[in-house]
Amino acid sequence: MRDLANRVRSLLRPELAALHPYHVADARGLVKLDAMENPYSWPEGMTEQWLDRLRQAAVNRYPDPSATELRSALRATAGVPDGAEILLGNGSDELIQIILMAVAGGDAVVLAPEPTFVMYRQLAVSLGLRFAGVPLRNDDFSLDMEAMRVAIRQHQPAVIFLAYPNNPTGNLFREEDVTEVLAIAPGLVVIDEAYAPFAGTSFLPRLLDHESLLVMRTLSKMGLAGLRLGYLVGAPEWIVEFDKLRLPYNINVLTQISAEYALSRSDVFDDQVKRLLGQRDYVSRQLNELPGVHAYPSRANFILFEMSLDAGRVFETLKARGILVKSFHSLLGPLHRCLRVTVGTPEENQLFLEQLSKILGR
Amino acid sequence: MRDLANRVRSLLRPELAALHPYHVADARGLVKLDAMENPYSWPEGMTEQWLDRLRQAAVNRYPDPSATELRSALRATAGVPDGAEILLGNGSDELIQIILMAVAGGDAVVLAPEPTFVMYRQLAVSLGLRFAGVPLRNDDFSLDMEAMRVAIRQHQPAVIFLAYPNNPTGNLFREEDVTEVLAIAPGLVVIDEAYAPFAGTSFLPRLLDHESLLVMRTLSKMGLAGLRLGYLVGAPEWIVEFDKLRLPYNINVLTQISAEYALSRSDVFDDQVKRLLGQRDYVSRQLNELPGVHAYPSRANFILFEMSLDAGRVFETLKARGILVKSFHSLLGPLHRCLRVTVGTPEENQLFLEQLSKILGR
Repeated sequence: MRDLANRVRSLLRPELAALHPYHVADARGLVKLDAMENPYSWPEGMTEQWLDRLRQAAVNRYPDPSATELRSALRATAGVPDGAEILLGNGSDELIQIILMAVAGGDAVVLAPEPTFVMYRQLAVSLGLRFAGVPLRNDDFSLDMEAMRVAIRQHQPAVIFLAYPNNPTGNLFREEDVTEVLAIAPGLVVIDEAYAPFAGTSFLPRLLDHESLLVMRTLSKMGLAGLRLGYLVGAPEWIVEFDKLRLPYNINVLTQISAEYALSRSDVFDDQVKRLLGQRDYVSRQLNELPGVHAYPSRANFILFEMSLDAGRVFETLKARGILVKSFHSLLGPLHRCLRVTVGTPEENQLFLEQLSKILGR
Repeated sequence: MRDLANRVRSLLRPELAALHPYHVADARGLVKLDAMENPYSWPEGMTEQWLDRLRQAAVNRYPDPSATELRSALRATAGVPDGAEILLGNGSDELIQIILMAVAGGDAVVLAPEPTFVMYRQLAVSLGLRFAGVPLRNDDFSLDMEAMRVAIRQHQPAVIFLAYPNNPTGNLFREEDVTEVLAIAPGLVVIDEAYAPFAGTSFLPRLLDHESLLVMRTLSKMGLAGLRLGYLVGAPEWIVEFDKLRLPYNINVLTQISAEYALSRSDVFDDQVKRLLGQRDYVSRQLNELPGVHAYPSRANFILFEMSLDAGRVFETLKARGILVKSFHSLLGPLHRCLRVTVGTPEENQLFLEQLSKILGR
């Protein structure tokens, strides 16, 4: 086995040795407020309608490789501008990977402000690309435009990722800052609008004003994380090239049918989003009333909050009491004292607030 | 738009310009004998059992990233040796891509006999890897071992792909030839057993005898092409590295539940396979009775056959009469006069044979 270990090392890319798989916490038996999932189930009757559609699925046949009907449904419900094209991915992860594969090779650099969604860095490194992280401003997690200008000039990034709103900080970057990044970027700018349903704003309508702008979305946070459907919108000139790198049958039969059905019932998801927005504001206010707690403003379905107590210990105590959130105590930098809580049902949120309140001695 | 075209070219990898997306024929309204799909639907009651399982799916939650239960079910039904590990992919395509990403960079070469499954070459090129194709012997599509020895010595391939049985030729390579390739390969050897249910043989039991052997399988040909589930089996030392490149939620909730259910009913699929094997032999015999037709022996669920007439014209005429097969007339080389037909239901096969017979003037 010693020989095999050596053989593995000598054959595979050296970057792999330093990579770790994306860690997912074990949530069994816990109130799950760690992953930005929509906590609501479907109203009476909807599940049966959905299963009726699936009953017709030809699981023995390959899926429609271009998922024509699903793309039409997305175009209509998401407000994709005429003249823009849509690429579907098995989650946004696959779309990030496709974009990065398209620019890989040579000395291409991928740039993103940090902290942000970790997969930009993870996937860039896994493809052997260089990644440049530019720290966000410490006070409000806005883009540090001086640092961004310098980094863009220096690295000439092939791709810039901007999560809008940003995860895990929850804020929207200032519109004029994003517009400046679009103006000075030498390559692609991907605006990742994973949390669009909760943000109340989007760059999608301005897509065709900027020829190297791509907008990425997902159905995950809206309530369909289990389906793994992301989509990328951009000028056809880009999409046709990325499509060459897409695995031909990447969206399976069940996802195509289920997502199309869900989009036909977008009223249900819109209503769930509305309830979550109300709860987001409630939880934020309550958090800010707790001693030593500061909740950052959120335009997503989660809230980042800072505490005077040790975040790691609070996280573990919450978990021991049956509530799973996300902790950043192991990171250096501004998130060191922060936890992130996903907005759940009123009952889940109340349970979380009560337990946190007890832990903080109030 | 001219500017944008230039920008696309200058930013993206030059190999992309020469790539074409994988072409999928439009099969609407046709008897579909082009894609190695299992033509049978499920027996009474099975669909309802399956939908009952899906009714419990938490589509609002992310899938189990390690798909623990599904991997256990595969281990039990496929006869995965103790000590070997399993990696799941969104189809075999994704597994091929992961293996290639793991060796990409530098001057790595990917080698396969040709003609073979086109995605080995397509995905290698799309990742900027060099691809070396070694022609199969013209007479029986067996491995040309002299040419293989020379090519392996010369290119020192990081990965060798062997489709076993091979697609589109349908034959199994000689066992002693595969064993020699395993002995002299300096890197990984991936034996792609996509057609295992129809082959009656496998390298899976010998997996741990060869430390750089990986065996790849799929549920597609067994009857679940719509689900997109492939799996790769190998020593844990390899799988743990590939797992770092796997997108964390690559197998969605619906596929995990559906595949697990299907594996619990493997008796049904085994029975369908048995019927297809009987039909394969029948269709082969009938083809060989037609004037100027030679059907190559098949260990898969399709048959490659050669004709004295122009393959492109026969293909088009069959299509005009409602039957879609696969034609290789546009290729140079030994397949120039060949069509490939997937084994269908007795009715579909009869229709195909009748129409072909008429076209061939008998």
